[in-house]
Amino acid sequence: MAENFSLEEFLASAVDAAKKAGEIIRKGFYQTKHVEHKGQVDLVTETDKACEDLVFNHLKQHYPNHKFIGEETTAAYGATELTDEPTWIVDPLDGTTNFVHGFPFVCVSIGLTIKKVPTVGVVYNPIMEIRFTGIHGKGAFLNGNPIKVSSKTELVKSLLATEAGTKRDKATLDDSTNRINNLLSKVRSLRMSGSCALNLCGIACGRLDLFYELGFGGPWDVAGGAVIVREAGGLVYDPSGKDFDITSQRVAASNPSLKDLFVEALQL
Amino acid sequence: MAENFSLEEFLASAVDAAKKAGEIIRKGFYQTKHVEHKGQVDLVTETDKACEDLVFNHLKQHYPNHKFIGEETTAAYGATELTDEPTWIVDPLDGTTNFVHGFPFVCVSIGLTIKKVPTVGVVYNPIMEIRFTGIHGKGAFLNGNPIKVSSKTELVKSLLATEAGTKRDKATLDDSTNRINNLLSKVRSLRMSGSCALNLCGIACGRLDLFYELGFGGPWDVAGGAVIVREAGGLVYDPSGKDFDITSQRVAASNPSLKDLFVEALQL
Repeated sequence: MAENFSLEEFLASAVDAAKKAGEIIRKGFYQTKHVEHKGQVDLVTETDKACEDLVFNHLKQHYPNHKFIGEETTAAYGATELTDEPTWIVDPLDGTTNFVHGFPFVCVSIGLTIKKVPTVGVVYNPIMEIRFTGIHGKGAFLNGNPIKVSSKTELVKSLLATEAGTKRDKATLDDSTNRINNLLSKVRSLRMSGSCALNLCGIACGRLDLFYELGFGGPWDVAGGAVIVREAGGLVYDPSGKDFDITSQRVAASNPSLKDLFVEALQL
Repeated sequence: MAENFSLEEFLASAVDAAKKAGEIIRKGFYQTKHVEHKGQVDLVTETDKACEDLVFNHLKQHYPNHKFIGEETTAAYGATELTDEPTWIVDPLDGTTNFVHGFPFVCVSIGLTIKKVPTVGVVYNPIMEIRFTGIHGKGAFLNGNPIKVSSKTELVKSLLATEAGTKRDKATLDDSTNRINNLLSKVRSLRMSGSCALNLCGIACGRLDLFYELGFGGPWDVAGGAVIVREAGGLVYDPSGKDFDITSQRVAASNPSLKDLFVEALQL
């Protein structure tokens, strides 16, 4: 497919789409606490769906030949295979539990893969007004200012992030808390803030040093954040130390100095 | 001691002191990432100490006969016994690890106890510009707007917060992760954001439903938040279900409907 657009143009379109979705998220965020539970569930579904439609429609207008993968569309129609074609991968509302509870770590995440490589990304938190962006080969930014990963070289001085996830069977829980037990004996402290995309951006801007998550929703959780981490000088990899596979629902991220130590500490 | 001041006057003084301390915290927060590790440690100590001095001096000017307990003063000179006298209990910088890492959950916490009961409290996050206040019998507020605890009645729909703490011996770690394992099988999800005072305020404004912490620093972590939770309609209690003891370094908080379920789930 002939491409007459620059990566900067792709990012500008993604940022515009994220801003529009952000308005819907912000409105819903301040509304959730005033509706009853069933209403809350509907509000989440409606917000999720409205944001995804809005982002897809905005991007399809500009790039009718691109492919699209979204959390909501996948939930409704099943998975779309990721190809080498330019593909927009969208999480319209990352941090759904936070959204319902009014905890301010929510965002819209938009990533563009080209030949399966995350190439353009925006992660926008409309509650805290924080926008992370990245373009392959062109750097990563927080509200327009360049960012880079932390310079930590020791686990004991590192701030770790992970998430509890949604699977609560005994095997998953035991595995998860055993790993946390092991890691807590090695790192400075642990944060769980409820958004995979914002955790990746936390690595990118150096406020977190280590992040891993196993069994998250899908590529939409990581497509935007992955390019932002890499452009901030960080690494995104499989928790085993192998190459990152965007479709695997497994991710780890850190600066290059911490990778080997982190991978070793992640094994049980 | 004769008191010619109203509780509202106490709160106004505390809010003024918190604002001043907040300016120092804000300045240091955006500075930490640009100094080397040794410099960071100094910056934390300096910020902590400068904020405590500032808060104490401000309050002592108005209330020369009151007692004062602060984290920094205690670290330097040993513990001061809590008496029935009006006593200002101050954490000049709660969330020290967050401060160093640039993670935005930091605050100054100021509480006034009268006859050992938390009576006036302010918890101010100067990075996110969020100020929680409470006066015994007069309600709790977020940036001036009344707040109340969540109306959840089931653990499975509840968002839990706790912290990893600083003790990393095997017994403490095993106890801590076993408890988390058990709780995760019962609640919706888990957040760890690194500030005890802000966790209490999260309960007060309903964005968190359950919070407990064992082995935190001292009464300065909870004196401000305790009155804010209670004035928002919540309960503050010992994780065993017994009465809250501000000097015990153990705390749990929730709305009244969740207390018994939470206490049961907290036992191993």
